[in-house]
Amino acid sequence: MARPRVVTLTSDTGSVYAAQMKAALLRYVAPAQIVDIAHDLPAHRVQEAAFLLDHVGSRFPAGTVHLAVVDPGVGGSRAPIAIRCRDGSLLVGPDNGVLAPLAVRLGGPKAYRLDPARVVPGGTVSATFEGRDLFAPAAGRLARGVPVARLGRAVAFVRCSLPRATRSGGWIRGEILHEDRFGNLITNVPTGWLPQVPSTVRSRWGRRRLVLARQRTYSDLPPGTVGILGSSFGTLELCVREGSAARTLGLGVGGRVAFSSVRPRAGKTVNSVGRT
Amino acid sequence: MARPRVVTLTSDTGSVYAAQMKAALLRYVAPAQIVDIAHDLPAHRVQEAAFLLDHVGSRFPAGTVHLAVVDPGVGGSRAPIAIRCRDGSLLVGPDNGVLAPLAVRLGGPKAYRLDPARVVPGGTVSATFEGRDLFAPAAGRLARGVPVARLGRAVAFVRCSLPRATRSGGWIRGEILHEDRFGNLITNVPTGWLPQVPSTVRSRWGRRRLVLARQRTYSDLPPGTVGILGSSFGTLELCVREGSAARTLGLGVGGRVAFSSVRPRAGKTVNSVGRT
Amino acid sequence: MARPRVVTLTSDTGSVYAAQMKAALLRYVAPAQIVDIAHDLPAHRVQEAAFLLDHVGSRFPAGTVHLAVVDPGVGGSRAPIAIRCRDGSLLVGPDNGVLAPLAVRLGGPKAYRLDPARVVPGGTVSATFEGRDLFAPAAGRLARGVPVARLGRAVAFVRCSLPRATRSGGWIRGEILHEDRFGNLITNVPTGWLPQVPSTVRSRWGRRRLVLARQRTYSDLPPGTVGILGSSFGTLELCVREGSAARTLGLGVGGRVAFSSVRPRAGKTVNSVGRT
Repeated sequence: MARPRVVTLTSDTGSVYAAQMKAALLRYVAPAQIVDIAHDLPAHRVQEAAFLLDHVGSRFPAGTVHLAVVDPGVGGSRAPIAIRCRDGSLLVGPDNGVLAPLAVRLGGPKAYRLDPARVVPGGTVSATFEGRDLFAPAAGRLARGVPVARLGRAVAFVRCSLPRATRSGGWIRGEILHEDRFGNLITNVPTGWLPQVPSTVRSRWGRRRLVLARQRTYSDLPPGTVGILGSSFGTLELCVREGSAARTLGLGVGGRVAFSSVRPRAGKTVNSVGRT
Repeated sequence: MARPRVVTLTSDTGSVYAAQMKAALLRYVAPAQIVDIAHDLPAHRVQEAAFLLDHVGSRFPAGTVHLAVVDPGVGGSRAPIAIRCRDGSLLVGPDNGVLAPLAVRLGGPKAYRLDPARVVPGGTVSATFEGRDLFAPAAGRLARGVPVARLGRAVAFVRCSLPRATRSGGWIRGEILHEDRFGNLITNVPTGWLPQVPSTVRSRWGRRRLVLARQRTYSDLPPGTVGILGSSFGTLELCVREGSAARTLGLGVGGRVAFSSVRPRAGKTVNSVGRT
Repeated sequence: MARPRVVTLTSDTGSVYAAQMKAALLRYVAPAQIVDIAHDLPAHRVQEAAFLLDHVGSRFPAGTVHLAVVDPGVGGSRAPIAIRCRDGSLLVGPDNGVLAPLAVRLGGPKAYRLDPARVVPGGTVSATFEGRDLFAPAAGRLARGVPVARLGRAVAFVRCSLPRATRSGGWIRGEILHEDRFGNLITNVPTGWLPQVPSTVRSRWGRRRLVLARQRTYSDLPPGTVGILGSSFGTLELCVREGSAARTLGLGVGGRVAFSSVRPRAGKTVNSVGRT
């Protein structure tokens, strides 16, 4: 491959540990086009990291190497793996589900259990930081063109998937999978399930009910009001223009929400936050 | 151009959205020398971002591509633009003023309204993330050498400028444009307006008055005391050695300050924070 | 040197000032493989930065240029220096001790006092940001292959070392040198001083005493309990599985701890946090 592979890094470790992974990587492939997806993810939240890696990782060029280390079970029994996908992309990390959604989306995934004796012959792998001692060297060797089958034996990988939204009885039910920096709440409900824009949408979470405006973009909302938009993840998000939906609604990752379209009535007040 | 162009990114979006912009960019130009100016800027503060981009961006080599996405009106009526400057630098972002000070500083700016049909032919631009779907591809194509006139038609751009400091009646009046990570308060008052070092300076903000030491550098101040230095932005800053001026003084971005030189008197106590 | 040198950056300045250092660097060497070790280090804590630079920096390839700017005395009397080490690595920063542990670890250090007239002939060095105006240009010229002796005259450098753990009377005494993003507390006690795994360890800090489990890895601890592991820094760390040891124990950087091995007794309760 003439063009050097891009290597992405996704972790919850902060930049100091990430730099150690980059140091290990650069021992195998330098120069390298390294892109940080994030190192400030909420600690130990494998599902949120899997969601982000899926959506962000799939936007990189074919053949990219994605290294993901969100790993509450580091040093435990879950296997260290690398997955080769149909487009030549390579995913490296713990077999705890963080890689699975992206692997399935890219298609044709074949997983290999990383063997330390093959990845870092003669080296040592610490019990507390496989990201640096095993995953980064593996990513470095893969970025350099070493075939993945040389780094370990073929295995099945954990095919855990992200929770899916459902539709029944006129209601759409979904879950919040990510809170972004602005406090926007990204759900798993496909944007196409509430296509009419603008419209009004009955919304529920816990015991709270709210009629919200389904709009096309932030600038269609009056500042400070809550609305529903199609997020850049392809799913619906709850947002507050120039404010935080998370704080305004008291909701966060893992929260369940339900939506139901209503025919707009003239003079109807929307965006008021309150119990009904 | 033999040397590859540097591409800088400035946003208030956090690293996850920034990584999506980089993924889009790398589809057009790879490898690329990408430099993050910041992704943790205060949300939606266009003027502060414009100030930082102006001062930081102007330090990069001629021909650099600067992508800036601080855009409370994303998807609204403000135009997506690219500006070519005299030195060959290219600025890409929303026409909300974030690019204007740097464009004027670099000189000879010519703006073009980005046409999605020309930037990403056959592609789709989401209503919530033009940074990824329009601006990053435009920056990628420009970094690759595509002439900017091919991406849209020439337009005028919003020439908003940063607030300027004034002098009258023995007082200098200015505004705080940036609070840095240490809590130093960067004003818009040119450092040359208070050149005498060391000296004492009467300072006012709101109803508070304070006599401060104008010093050359942090190490000239006793730890914990407030002082006035020439910042690395070429303007005066209020600072506390090994402390936060923002917290000590209760001041932040947008705060107005006034300074007046006084002749130093022997034995005068300075740096005491209090009302007079 | 055929392979371009890697350049690392370590600071407590935040990304905006770091970007200014990168702009200065890229004026001398572009493209460059720049790796951020951290820019969010605790402000002005030279010793913690020295510890991190020592452990992280030593993992980079031979010949790497390390630029470190944690400098409460910027503009003061401490000298600006560059140090050449035996493996060809080059360390650039203030002579306040931040470079010393890495220089000693890499071996054969020779220091030079950076002369602004030689580093940036005709340029100006601001009193508040030598990182951008002197250190980054020096790093850029060194990365490009300029011999360090051309940038200043040979000097002695501050040989301050990190505090060392001690052993006496059956007790190991050490200090916490770093708190990581998870709240793990990294001590200066070599991991080999408590090699038996699993075992129980009497621990003391201030007036508190605790019997803790010495384990091999996070996943050997029940969630929420405190334990002692060999950290990825080669020293012992106090940690809470999926929690923060710093918060649980009320300890932080600079805190003194003492450990003493005990023979495990059947049925002994460990990991309970409390006074005895």
